[in-house]
Amino acid sequence: MNILKANREALTELYQSLRKEYEEYKAQNLSLDLSRGKPDSLQLDLTQPMLDTPLTRDDVVNGGIDYRNYGVFEGVPAMKKLFSELFSIDENNIFIGGNSSLQLMYDTMMRCMMFGTADSPRPWVQVDKRKWLCVAPGYDRHFLITEKLGFELITIPMRADGPDMDLVEEYVKDPSVLGIWCVPKYSNPTGNTYSDTVVRRLASMKCAAPDFRIFWDNAYGIHDIAEEGDHLMNIFDACKEYGTENRVFFYTSTSKITFPGAGVAMMAMSDDNLNHARSYLSASTIGYDKLNQLRHIRFLKNPEHVRAHMRRLGDMIKEKFDLTLSILDQTLLDSGVATYTRPNGGYFISLDVMPGTAKRVYDLMKEAGVTLTKVGATYPYGIDPEDKNLRLAPTYCTLADLSLSCKILTVAVRMSAIEKLIF
Amino acid sequence: MNILKANREALTELYQSLRKEYEEYKAQNLSLDLSRGKPDSLQLDLTQPMLDTPLTRDDVVNGGIDYRNYGVFEGVPAMKKLFSELFSIDENNIFIGGNSSLQLMYDTMMRCMMFGTADSPRPWVQVDKRKWLCVAPGYDRHFLITEKLGFELITIPMRADGPDMDLVEEYVKDPSVLGIWCVPKYSNPTGNTYSDTVVRRLASMKCAAPDFRIFWDNAYGIHDIAEEGDHLMNIFDACKEYGTENRVFFYTSTSKITFPGAGVAMMAMSDDNLNHARSYLSASTIGYDKLNQLRHIRFLKNPEHVRAHMRRLGDMIKEKFDLTLSILDQTLLDSGVATYTRPNGGYFISLDVMPGTAKRVYDLMKEAGVTLTKVGATYPYGIDPEDKNLRLAPTYCTLADLSLSCKILTVAVRMSAIEKLIF
Repeated sequence: MNILKANREALTELYQSLRKEYEEYKAQNLSLDLSRGKPDSLQLDLTQPMLDTPLTRDDVVNGGIDYRNYGVFEGVPAMKKLFSELFSIDENNIFIGGNSSLQLMYDTMMRCMMFGTADSPRPWVQVDKRKWLCVAPGYDRHFLITEKLGFELITIPMRADGPDMDLVEEYVKDPSVLGIWCVPKYSNPTGNTYSDTVVRRLASMKCAAPDFRIFWDNAYGIHDIAEEGDHLMNIFDACKEYGTENRVFFYTSTSKITFPGAGVAMMAMSDDNLNHARSYLSASTIGYDKLNQLRHIRFLKNPEHVRAHMRRLGDMIKEKFDLTLSILDQTLLDSGVATYTRPNGGYFISLDVMPGTAKRVYDLMKEAGVTLTKVGATYPYGIDPEDKNLRLAPTYCTLADLSLSCKILTVAVRMSAIEKLIF
Repeated sequence: MNILKANREALTELYQSLRKEYEEYKAQNLSLDLSRGKPDSLQLDLTQPMLDTPLTRDDVVNGGIDYRNYGVFEGVPAMKKLFSELFSIDENNIFIGGNSSLQLMYDTMMRCMMFGTADSPRPWVQVDKRKWLCVAPGYDRHFLITEKLGFELITIPMRADGPDMDLVEEYVKDPSVLGIWCVPKYSNPTGNTYSDTVVRRLASMKCAAPDFRIFWDNAYGIHDIAEEGDHLMNIFDACKEYGTENRVFFYTSTSKITFPGAGVAMMAMSDDNLNHARSYLSASTIGYDKLNQLRHIRFLKNPEHVRAHMRRLGDMIKEKFDLTLSILDQTLLDSGVATYTRPNGGYFISLDVMPGTAKRVYDLMKEAGVTLTKVGATYPYGIDPEDKNLRLAPTYCTLADLSLSCKILTVAVRMSAIEKLIF
């Protein structure tokens, strides 16, 4: 039933029936959660063999190197090689971090603030009224870092093929616009992937700030769910064409390949950028955990093996995405009051409800015992200007809980829309 | 033979004999290294059982928590408990980090620069002509962090009982003096420990800056070599007496308990300080590796077990310290041109040669194929004003190499002194 086209009587009737259904759910005193963008334990069990096999002395002392000791500062060469092959980036441009790519991003950002970049006329902290482009809906932790560091956050709407590039190209004419957050593949939470055209425009656009930087958080770079995953152009290739290699800081990790709490993160950047970073990195840490890198190399082996592993993980996630979408489709597809994404990978489905009702949906869900990601979390300053976006994270809960949560969600979305329309 | 009291003839004769001995060493084309402050592989083998035993699924999923996943942001409670018991610090004031306490220190410092502390009227980056106290000889990476961040480094001479507190108390009257680096126990490189009086004076002194901070790097807090180790007063206890708990940022790690490259680091601070840090920590990382914490808890067990482990490590280090000191004693003890420390713990012996000759000793050693820590590295800006201090790191090389290196060193020290006196 298309709620937008229905008459008042039909809506009143539907509302009463939904209200009844809702009260029945509520009476069950549920405690469910659709907010957690993390794998369930069954997914993690696929990587358990990494822990089940001990690291022997021969594993950790070889080739004249004792990996238990200090040294090998930029990462175990085989770990670099694996990332290099997976993402087609030269090993010499890769630095292996700890268990968190977010930490590498934050650390880079702090370095830029205090010391600037390889191309900076001054540290970023000295740029008055500094601004940052935030593609929204997007990742709250990204936005939070730049908010805390005193950037004015500028919202760039996310389109099907990536950020609204007309707007981006307009904003970068301002020399106080210093960069942009990007999750280019299976973006959080929209699940879409930047087109080649968007990647090229990001690489080629004229930026007034000589030290403009793209924080390219390729967190879901190999995280396909569909058999035929999305294609993302290698941004370094594009930058090479336009002579803008210094523009990109690239990040990824194995958080959603192996373990979210104990994976291996990496960053990649041009020679200039890495040389600039090096002089500060060596003052800031004794280097990252090489033994965990050895564990990863042994378990992940090579790109083919990684892709096979990701296919198994993808199948487990697909089951949950399919279930979610099939339930949404039953009552929301033709409702006129909801649109949602059907990603080929990643961790999230983005649901747009009738403008002005997202918070009401959130509250109804809360009251019925289902936690959603806070409304606004996907926007700069935590404010969704249209009060319409909800981020769904189907991966963590069980299939039964997911099914129940989604059913309640479809009720809440329609109730909220009708309330808005006729009350 | 006391070189200072010998006549010219005797010195000339001694020099010729030393020169001959030196040339013989040189002819061997040696490649030795006394510069590396890290354990040897035999020491690390004591911790190998931690890696030999796999982490089973029951180890990593228990008590309703899947430690392989996100969450448990501030560290596994049992890891906090162990540090709490070892250092008599409340668990609630402990935050568990990654594999590098240096990283936690750098991160704290960057946070202070950009956001200030719980007591700051403004971020440190806004303090013009900011200054930092550096106890010297000290740890080069400490000095480097504050140098890079634009602090003027002020040298505080290290005395037998810790920093020259008269000088410290004088300097902290300046509101632009924002803090001090301290390695309070078995200090790098002098190996001495701060007396209770020094700890109390640090806790009680009147600081003009309301946000003055002591970076208390207790890296060698339980690293005794002698049977009766040094005693270090708990600085938090002292601060509580004087109401200055916010003054201290405490750091330590298992780098030299388990593995330098894959240990567990921690920081401890007052409630105010930790609450202040929390709001930034959650934006800066997804949390640290909990699986490595679980490995450590299982291997280290409890304080008694840790102390027994440290005794075994201490015995291995003692053998090398004893060898070093016995060789130095043979010709340098009564030479009048060298003094050196006899630490009860830690990793270093500090050797003061005749002022104005340390660089010459370094060069002679280099020429004979023995690498020493660069002269000046233990001082702010890398400059030893008297050109006299050498940091000896006996732990990494084999006993045979150590013996040979030390013998050449005694030759080089005496040669350099005589050259200075009579040429």
